[in-house]
Amino acid sequence: MSNLITLDDIKSAHAAIKDSLVKTPTLYAFSLSQKYGCDIFLKLENLQATGSFKCRGALYRLLQLSGAEKKRGVIACSAGNHAQGVAYHATQMGISAKIVMPKSTPSKKVENTEKYGAEVILFGDSFQEAHDQAHKICKEEGRILIPPFDDPHIITGQGTIGLELFDQDNDFDEIIVPIGGGGLISGIATACKEQGKKARIVGVQSKTHPTHYNAFYGTDEPSQGTTIAEGIAVKTFSDLTKNHIKTHVDAITLASENAIENAIYDLMTVEKIVAEGAGAAALAPILEDSERYKGKKVCLIICGGNIDQSLMTTILTRGMMAHHLYTILRFESEDKPGFLASITKTLADENINIVEVHHNRLFKSLPVKKTHIDITIETRGRAHAEAIESLFSGKGFKVKVINAPLQ
Amino acid sequence: MSNLITLDDIKSAHAAIKDSLVKTPTLYAFSLSQKYGCDIFLKLENLQATGSFKCRGALYRLLQLSGAEKKRGVIACSAGNHAQGVAYHATQMGISAKIVMPKSTPSKKVENTEKYGAEVILFGDSFQEAHDQAHKICKEEGRILIPPFDDPHIITGQGTIGLELFDQDNDFDEIIVPIGGGGLISGIATACKEQGKKARIVGVQSKTHPTHYNAFYGTDEPSQGTTIAEGIAVKTFSDLTKNHIKTHVDAITLASENAIENAIYDLMTVEKIVAEGAGAAALAPILEDSERYKGKKVCLIICGGNIDQSLMTTILTRGMMAHHLYTILRFESEDKPGFLASITKTLADENINIVEVHHNRLFKSLPVKKTHIDITIETRGRAHAEAIESLFSGKGFKVKVINAPLQ
Repeated sequence: MSNLITLDDIKSAHAAIKDSLVKTPTLYAFSLSQKYGCDIFLKLENLQATGSFKCRGALYRLLQLSGAEKKRGVIACSAGNHAQGVAYHATQMGISAKIVMPKSTPSKKVENTEKYGAEVILFGDSFQEAHDQAHKICKEEGRILIPPFDDPHIITGQGTIGLELFDQDNDFDEIIVPIGGGGLISGIATACKEQGKKARIVGVQSKTHPTHYNAFYGTDEPSQGTTIAEGIAVKTFSDLTKNHIKTHVDAITLASENAIENAIYDLMTVEKIVAEGAGAAALAPILEDSERYKGKKVCLIICGGNIDQSLMTTILTRGMMAHHLYTILRFESEDKPGFLASITKTLADENINIVEVHHNRLFKSLPVKKTHIDITIETRGRAHAEAIESLFSGKGFKVKVINAPLQ
Repeated sequence: MSNLITLDDIKSAHAAIKDSLVKTPTLYAFSLSQKYGCDIFLKLENLQATGSFKCRGALYRLLQLSGAEKKRGVIACSAGNHAQGVAYHATQMGISAKIVMPKSTPSKKVENTEKYGAEVILFGDSFQEAHDQAHKICKEEGRILIPPFDDPHIITGQGTIGLELFDQDNDFDEIIVPIGGGGLISGIATACKEQGKKARIVGVQSKTHPTHYNAFYGTDEPSQGTTIAEGIAVKTFSDLTKNHIKTHVDAITLASENAIENAIYDLMTVEKIVAEGAGAAALAPILEDSERYKGKKVCLIICGGNIDQSLMTTILTRGMMAHHLYTILRFESEDKPGFLASITKTLADENINIVEVHHNRLFKSLPVKKTHIDITIETRGRAHAEAIESLFSGKGFKVKVINAPLQ
């Protein structure tokens, strides 16, 4: 294998791994396409075994092991989807697998990895410390290290996605691929360009972690802050993926946290698909500049679906607030009987559902004998929320909508 | 077309409609299969145009209209997915569409139907009154009525799913299909049986609406109560679907509300798929008797994904409580300074995330000077929740877990 992987490499990999993986759909996203006025296709790697594309590369790398190497076992350092991919396929192949994770790793991720049969070693206060420990164990125990992206067989495995995109005679104007370490886009871009496809290959990174963006454009945007797209929050670098990206990728764009959050919300509520932050990031460029995509045929690589349930709930609720499907009405009132009854009667007459009533007389910045009542109701959007606010104002209530604005 | 539709009818329908629809995947559900110890495939009609299978039958029925009939326009009575299917395809074909819905229909559903281009008429206090009004308008205006299931072309259209299930050389032991009016299962069962497939065809109804169950087994289970699977909450009856079911279906089972709710939760959190109650109902039999499905190859028809966002949020939160991913610890305490600090210090030492603190001194059934504090924390399941409870008990706290039990 030369420095850059080739289409033939990817075809060999596909033949080797496809029967051990889920054949994920390349879905025409009817509802998203209607909403954004372009033809959106989704490669649903959130439905892949272990919930992300990572098991493609992991499996293909494991298949390269000799009999002797398999007996020595493997080791990886990852707190995310790579860990699960290695754990699952190593166990399936009867290979001992150890995964090193930083001590701060959420226990849910530890459990998911153990569930697939790997031994998890919690070590160090940072990813770097865990990484160093993995290399140490690797030497001490003679295990084979399975890196997350900086390996030609890993890249080749991820590239198999690039063959499956065109199964149904699809021809795209643009393919948008999330970039963390860059293994996914390196493989897909190689497959697309060497098949002679016309599609522009566009990478997307979180604004908080613009490593490949900086390398691609020679800029110096800072890596700082936290992101809900933790799967692409990669600070380290690989010349191997950098070279593939330089050769085959047309552009890299940065996505804001708001756009990624809104993308998760849209995928879940409009298209009925659960994606993690890194997976939804591929939709972010369309949300941030939908005009540019009007009438185009775009394929988004939804690379993973391993999102915490508490985060899903938070994003759903925030989204409903932002779109005024929930509206909080804050009433200022004299603290006397009958006030709440008059509000709820009006809402009942309007056939409006009440979600929550918060009536707290303590700790308010109002004079004694005045009070706030916050009532959360179900509404049909901003216009409806404002109409209800006006209805109450017209009846003499002091009321305002206090939802956080849509960002 | 004879009384019963045939495989040839369905093949003709498929040729006629497939280019206007989303080719929905028949997905191997890796994570659900791992969880339940059987091979589960999902036909994802929640990803179909307008979010459900209903547009298959609606489109095929519309394609039967003569030029003169198209000019007269169509009418349907539905507060759900049928309305959206008719609205969308009629508009696409340039046919005027009116949809009658009961006045109590949630405005979200009205808007969705209007969004697809139909005129919505809100009429009557019950589905029956809306239904009668649709027939009245039908006569007055000479419109063509598009019924939701009691029509051979509708059944034939839904049956096209039964051709697509076997695209990837799948051969199932069982195919589980939700039953409302029965059009979906009538079509699919015909397609499967007349293709000579070995699969048992099993229908599933909500326990609250066992109409076809009663007809099939000659029982008299009551139709009563509300269901989160409103898409299959059908009280009316059709001899046409009854005859298809009698001929081609092997069994019908009833699903409890708990099982349907848990199925929605599992699809969303385990398999990354958003399904509405009726769509998730196909998973309910496996949840209620997973032993029976061990080692089998089962295909579930996930017939729709149009679920309210507030219901999604509620089900996620209830599911997290039931599975102790959220745990509420209720502490009884002397009402004196430092008590909350000692609790939060202990939780911090255990690296546990606090979701909510509810500390209310009023309205409690405790002596003055005692108080309750309810603290919601993130946990990793029942064993973890109980370990935390024991940890606090061991330190002398009066504490108990007050999550509602898993049903």
